[in-house]
Order: sequence, then structure tokens, then C-alpha cells
Amino acid sequence: MAETKISDQFAILKAPKGTRDRNPVQMSILENVFGVIRACFKRHDAVSIETPVFELREVLTGKYGEESKLIYDLEDQGGELLSLRYDLTVPFARYVAMNKIRNIKRFQIGKVYRRDQPAMNRGRFREFYQCDFDIAGDYGLMMADAECLRIVYEVLRDLNLGEFVIKVNHRNFLEGLFAACGVPPEKFTTTCSSVDKLDKTPWETVKHELLNEKGLSPEAVDLIGHYTQIAGGAEVLDKLEADPLLSESKIIQQTLKEMRTLVEYCEAMGIMSNLKVDLSLARGLDYYTGVIYEAVLTGFTYDGKQQQAAELAPPTTDQQIPKKSSNRKKGKGGKGKQSQAEDGEDEDVSMEGAVGSVAGGGRYDNLVNLFSPNSPAVPCVGVSFGVERLLAISEMLARRRAAAGDTSASASVRATETEVMIIVAHKGLITPRLQIAQELWDANIKTAFSHKNQPKLLDQLQYCESTGIPLAVLIGQTELERGVVKLRHISTRAEREVARTDLVSEINKELTLIRNGVYQ
Amino acid sequence: MAETKISDQFAILKAPKGTRDRNPVQMSILENVFGVIRACFKRHDAVSIETPVFELREVLTGKYGEESKLIYDLEDQGGELLSLRYDLTVPFARYVAMNKIRNIKRFQIGKVYRRDQPAMNRGRFREFYQCDFDIAGDYGLMMADAECLRIVYEVLRDLNLGEFVIKVNHRNFLEGLFAACGVPPEKFTTTCSSVDKLDKTPWETVKHELLNEKGLSPEAVDLIGHYTQIAGGAEVLDKLEADPLLSESKIIQQTLKEMRTLVEYCEAMGIMSNLKVDLSLARGLDYYTGVIYEAVLTGFTYDGKQQQAAELAPPTTDQQIPKKSSNRKKGKGGKGKQSQAEDGEDEDVSMEGAVGSVAGGGRYDNLVNLFSPNSPAVPCVGVSFGVERLLAISEMLARRRAAAGDTSASASVRATETEVMIIVAHKGLITPRLQIAQELWDANIKTAFSHKNQPKLLDQLQYCESTGIPLAVLIGQTELERGVVKLRHISTRAEREVARTDLVSEINKELTLIRNGVYQ
Repeated sequence: MAETKISDQFAILKAPKGTRDRNPVQMSILENVFGVIRACFKRHDAVSIETPVFELREVLTGKYGEESKLIYDLEDQGGELLSLRYDLTVPFARYVAMNKIRNIKRFQIGKVYRRDQPAMNRGRFREFYQCDFDIAGDYGLMMADAECLRIVYEVLRDLNLGEFVIKVNHRNFLEGLFAACGVPPEKFTTTCSSVDKLDKTPWETVKHELLNEKGLSPEAVDLIGHYTQIAGGAEVLDKLEADPLLSESKIIQQTLKEMRTLVEYCEAMGIMSNLKVDLSLARGLDYYTGVIYEAVLTGFTYDGKQQQAAELAPPTTDQQIPKKSSNRKKGKGGKGKQSQAEDGEDEDVSMEGAVGSVAGGGRYDNLVNLFSPNSPAVPCVGVSFGVERLLAISEMLARRRAAAGDTSASASVRATETEVMIIVAHKGLITPRLQIAQELWDANIKTAFSHKNQPKLLDQLQYCESTGIPLAVLIGQTELERGVVKLRHISTRAEREVARTDLVSEINKELTLIRNGVYQ
Repeated sequence: MAETKISDQFAILKAPKGTRDRNPVQMSILENVFGVIRACFKRHDAVSIETPVFELREVLTGKYGEESKLIYDLEDQGGELLSLRYDLTVPFARYVAMNKIRNIKRFQIGKVYRRDQPAMNRGRFREFYQCDFDIAGDYGLMMADAECLRIVYEVLRDLNLGEFVIKVNHRNFLEGLFAACGVPPEKFTTTCSSVDKLDKTPWETVKHELLNEKGLSPEAVDLIGHYTQIAGGAEVLDKLEADPLLSESKIIQQTLKEMRTLVEYCEAMGIMSNLKVDLSLARGLDYYTGVIYEAVLTGFTYDGKQQQAAELAPPTTDQQIPKKSSNRKKGKGGKGKQSQAEDGEDEDVSMEGAVGSVAGGGRYDNLVNLFSPNSPAVPCVGVSFGVERLLAISEMLARRRAAAGDTSASASVRATETEVMIIVAHKGLITPRLQIAQELWDANIKTAFSHKNQPKLLDQLQYCESTGIPLAVLIGQTELERGVVKLRHISTRAEREVARTDLVSEINKELTLIRNGVYQ
């Protein structure tokens, strides 16, 4: 094997900018979070698919507006021109069109790639996971949309990260409202992009932008200020229905009907208390054609408890200092439903570490047909979870639980699930170690032992404590000759002799007791 | 959103060459196979880590010998030069060196990338999964090596793909043997590369190559022919020990001792009956420094049942015809422990579709120190599973089971785990559908319903049958008014009335019976 130049060794001992390795504890948390999310998707009759990490470059072309410049291209080494996927939605649409699928309810968990300016401690990476659930098919009005909202509800409920709110709006509400306010149609998108900042920017700032940068009339801006403050339950719809300024707007009246259907279905599925119709929500409008939504964790929003949020920046192995760069553009036009990396345009230091939305999505009825324009329409609605943010919060809560507990902090999140360690009380005994390990593995007991020829007793016990292994089998020559071993509880230090022949059943008994919390 | 040129629509409706999408049934099989593998790793006290899909180009430089030309480079768009990972071993070594880890037992499952000539129906892809288990640390002789072999044994046993053999050899056996045969040291690597073909090439062909292409003497070649036929259990070691030609070779005598230790440990762990010491095994020698091994499924080897193997080529969505190309180089020098894409140098049509080794690995004590030459050594041993091959075989066996069964073929491998479908007996009833769904989801019952406003009864029942949903809740207006619904077994068509209030408990009872196979 050719040798790496030694002088380069320190320069290359890092993960690429904007990416990170995940250590065993982080992997453990990830598995748990993904497990919850996957269980929810499966409870809802979803299948899963997988697409390659890169696509033909043309598949991505023209799907992301200005963001296209953030796409990673592969070098032209002959053959097809390829790019790393920018999200999971466009590959999904390609898959649906290519396989002429008329309806599918699928989830996909995978990494996506954006050559964005990273802000690692705020959860903005160049390589990050997305976790998407989408329903494609020509279905009854709001049926699939309501189920997507239920999915958001179940995932956030089951992840147990505190209170949450799912903000809901409709693209056509914004269109009708802004028209009624006197916004010229050509300024619709740019107005949306300003309004979208309201979740972390005061109205006065947005107002200033609308007046001076976007050139709207003061009357229009005041009306926008009025309407975008409206948020709440089903009563918001009553308010809009009663508004004389909107009574002539066909699009508003039609959308009101649709939204009443959505509310009815959400009531039936028991999620209205977590829903808020919020007329200031204006995400990814180039992409969406109907309902849009975004979920926030009440304890971790920009206007929420910032102290909590400030804890979110863990030490990383990557030593980069995030910098603002012209590479990071303002505004969200053409962004689609990617909730990851959507916030952070305003690098307010006081908000360092706060997370924005943790899930977002909506209806996008035209994307599949971009790939198969002559085929029947395949309307879609879906949601993407900002799992990197959910993971960052879960990791923070785990650290906090550990800090609040006793000195056995590392026991809080275990990197392994090992149940038993075979410990040698004195030197040697390699073959008995392996024989007992085989017996336990064959009984599906998760078992460790030291790979050293002569491990120290203290080191072995210490390994159990630091990695959270609850039981130890202590073996010694004289005990083995008598046909017994010692079974030891690591936490209580209680030991008892067990016949070699009963070892598996005795361990299983103890594990059952431990699982049932008898020793706590 | 800018529109894709319509003229391009058909050209881009494909996954890139050498890659594929995985459909829901394939994903289901993948989840099952990965679940078995992951469970085994966890039973052995392993942690998991994750590294980015791309690395700094320099990290990969000089690690893969001639294979380097198969690395995918990312375009230079400013900033760091990046390449897609070629395996999981080099990133693991980078991780260990970077974090100054002295010992770790980790697994990693992830996709790797090779700009190789694809042969999709033989399991050679440009994007494919690797599934690696490695033990790093300065441990007792053969302790970690033996556990890796036990891992191979457990995974292949638990995957239930028929008989298997784990071939074992030692780099130093080959070195000592070839030296004793009279092979000049400078021809060691090239001799190994010829010998390595013996698993699918007759000796006469290899002999011809050694004589005429590699230029070895007829005496040396005859001796090589003699030794490389030697394979078997521990008696192989006795045979070598008794061989007068080898009695003077220090390296052989030292390696014999090491191998006897390995055999002792493998005996203790109960895996000797699946092990074969095979002196013709000569994989990835640039990489390995000690024990090497490779596992084959007896029913799916090149010399095994080729009829089985021929079934392995499923229809793919990718329509490429695999061609032999100069891009695919001969020989394996510098290949490392990647069992994927290792075979196929000789495109013998009669062997089309056969898979080679399904796992392979060995000891590589120097790789970590390439990244940290001034740090203490971190010896490593590991195994990589050729999961794409294991998946291809699992998919074939699933198809075969389905074909052998009755007409409900699709029930054989389910794409979802859905337990109940809420079926409407006549039009409408949307709200009750959603209410009951909520109740079942909250009870953690995997539940489906039609998203159509007016689904046909037959379509709904058909959906249960085709996707394997075992139970249906039939709702009708009059029944709902009476406070009852019908619970229906899809397979037996038995129906009974159940009080709305008892629905969850009645469903759970039925699901328990179904799980226990009462209705089979």
C-alpha cells in the first residue's frame, strides 16, 4: 500500500467542512429517534423506498430555483453527469414518475447534501438527514393532508420533547389575502419571503422591509400587518368569513371551505389542540400548491426559552468556526419543504443555538408531472422532519438528564445494549471465557468479555460501570472446578454463586428483574 | 419553479448507471437482513459510529493502490477537495486516529461508491452497502480475530441461507509457503493474485498463468499447486508441521503457533465445524497483516448449484446490459477487505449470477498508523459483509417461497406491517373512519384506511389481500348507530360484530391469535 505523506497527517485528520462523524452515544440517540419516527410511519401503513445518493444532474435541474447553486456536483470523470441529492422529494417524484405509480404512501430516511455555509452549532450542516413521509394519489379533499398533520402530531408526541404547535396555512389564503390587501400579483412571492421572517423577526423590521425594500404601499403593509397577526383555532376561519374585505374574494371563500374540511378531519383525529391556523406562515411557495404547515417545539423556539436553546451547541470534533458568508443567500424562494437549514438568515447572536421548525411540509400537486408531463396528475402531500434539530435537542436533554443524575452520568445514554460481562477473577482463563460467551450468545444474551490475555479485575468492573452493563459473570479456576460461577449485580455489588448449568436461566431471571426496575 | 425541458423527460427518468432504487418489498427484505446483522453486532458489545459519505480526497489517497481510479471525486466548486468514500475501513481508521482512540469495537452500515463497470445482475453496483464490524485495540493474540469469525458464523447462521463455510488463511502462511516453493519475494504479490482466482478458476488455468505470465519456475508452480490444494480443519496445521520442506521456515513455524491458538479459540466458541483452513485463500494482501478469511454460502458458490445462482438475476428498472470493459481491471492488488465487487474478473457466462464470497476480512495492523504515524499502534481486525449479495439471495429465496405457495404470492414478503384496515361498507363515513383510526393508532395498532371519499368495498378488501393486512374493521351507518362494527378476518372471511367500546381489545385478541398461528 502506498503511504500517505506524513507531513499531511494533521491536515487530513478531520471530517469535511460542514459534516461530522457521529460517535456511539450520538448513534444511540439517533437510533432511538429514528425508531420512534419509523414506528409512527409504519403505524400509518407506509412503505419505504430508497433512492441513490446521487441523481442524474438533469433530474435536479430547475427544481430548486436560486438554491441550485448549493447543489454538489460530481466531477465529470466520463459518463453521466451526476449531482448529490439536495432533498428526498425530487428523487421521490422521479421514482413515482419513472415507475408510473398512481398512488403510494412512502417514507424515506436518508442524508441530503447542500453546499451551504455551515453553522454546525445551530444544526446547519452540509450533510444532514431528512426523514420524509409523503402520500401520492388522487384522493378525497384533505384526507391525505390531515393524515400528514396527524403524523407530525404523533412523532412529536412520541419523541417527548415537550409542548409543540403545528402551524397551518394555505397557499391560496396568502394569495387571496395579499391581493385583498392591494399587493400587486408580481410582488406576491417577495412579499411572502418577507412575511415568512415573522417567526423570528419583529413586525417593525418586516414592515420596514415591505415598505422600503419591497415598495409596497403603506395601506397594503398595514393590512398585511393586521392579517398576519391572526392565528388560532377554527375561529380564525370564522373571522375570515366575517371579514367584509374578503367576502368578494373567490379564492378566499373556496379556501375557507377546504380549510373547514381540514379542521373537521383534524378534530376527528384528535389533533386540533396542537394546531394553529397561522396566516403568517409562508414557506416554500414556489413548491406548494395547497395546505402548508410547520411544527415548532414551544420550549425551543427563537422567542421561547433561549437559555435552553443556548445549550444546544455541543462540542464537536470539527473545529471550524461558523462564519457568515455571501454563499448563504437571503430569502427562501424555491426552497421547497426542506425544514432543515431554513432558518439562520439573521445571525442574531442572542439566538445562537435556537432551533426553528422541526417539521414542515405541505401539498405539492405538480412536481411529479414535471417528470411525466403527459401522464395523469399525481397529486402529493408530505412532511419532512428536521431530524438534525430533533437529534440536537434529544442529545441536549440526555446531557441534562445525565448532569441531574448521580456520578454515573454515562449510564444515562448507553452506547451499547450489552447485558452481561464475563469477568475473570485472576489471570488467564481465556478458553472458559470464550466457552461461556458462546453459551450466552447462543441464548441471545448480549455479552462482553475482555480481549486481553490478563485483564485486571478492576478494569473489567470499571468497564461495566462506565458502559452501563448491569450484570457480571465472575469466573475463577476453583469455582469452575466446582461447577459454579459468581453472578454479580454491578450497581448493588451483590454477588451469588450459580451453577454453571443454570447460568443462562439465572441470568435471564435477573435481566427480567432489572428490566422491571426491581433494583431501582 | 423553473420547468424541466419536456424533451428531456424520458432521458432523465432513470437512476444513474450502476445504481438502483429499492422498492418497498426490497426494503422490507433489507430491513430484515440488516436487523439480523445489527442484532448480532449488538449481542457482541459493539457500538456503532457514522462517518460522512464523502471524505477529504487526501484521506483516501494512497489507500487503494490501482483501485484509486475508481474513486468518485466531487467537482471542485471552491473549498476542500472531496471524494465519495470507497469503503468504510479507511474512514474508520481516520476516525480512530483523529479521536486518538486506543480501542473500540464498532460496526457501521453504509453505502460506498466505486466508479466500477457495473454488473447489476451479478450484484456489482456503483453504489452499494457495506456492513462492517471491526475490533481495534492491542489485545491478546487471536482473541479479537476469533470473535470476528464467530460474528461471521452467527450472522450467516441467523440469516438462514443454507450451509456455509468460512475459509481461513494467514498472510504469513502465504509468504512462508511461496518462499519455500522458490517464489522470489518480488513476485509474491502477483503470485497471490493468481492463486486468489482458484475459487472459480481451474488449477490448469492458474498454472498456465503462473508459468507463462508470471514467469515462475515449473518446480515452484508444482509446489504451489500442491500446497494450495491443502484445505481442512486443524489437521492442516499438523500436515504443515510435519512437512520437511517447511521445518526450516521460521515464519511458518511462528504462524503455525498463532493458528493453533486461533483454532483453540474457535473450538471454544463452537465454530470449528464451519471453518476451513484453506491455503489458497489470498485476498487483499496489500492491506492485511495477519489472519484473513472469507465466507461462502455452499449453495451459491461458483462451483455450487449454478441453477440456483442463475435465478439471482431479477428484472431491474435499470435497463443497462452489463458489458466487459477495460475499466474493470484484472487482479485484486490493494483491494483491502471489500468483499463486494471482488469477483467477476472472468466473465464466464455459465456462471452468470453466481455470487462469490458473502463476507470477508482479516487483520490490518498498520492502517490507523498511516493517519497517525507518531502515535502508538492501534492494531485492527474486522469483517465486511457483502450485503448486496446476501440481499440478492434473500430476495431470490423470497420469490421462490412465494412461487411455491398459493396464489396470494405477494403476502410472502410484506411491504408494510399494517394489521387492520378500516373499511367503509357504503359511501362516505369519512369522519368515523378517522375517529376509529385515531383510536387504533393511539392503541399502537398499525392501521390503514382508504383516502378516497367513496371507496368501493371490493377495492378495500382487495387492498387487504394484496398487501397482507390480516384484519378489517367494517363500518356502516346503521351499525355505528347501534354502537357496533364488524371485525373481519381477511383470510377466512369470518366476520363478527364487536361493540365499538371493545374494539381495541378485540383487535388485540385477534392479533395475538394470528401471531400465534392459530388460523394457519
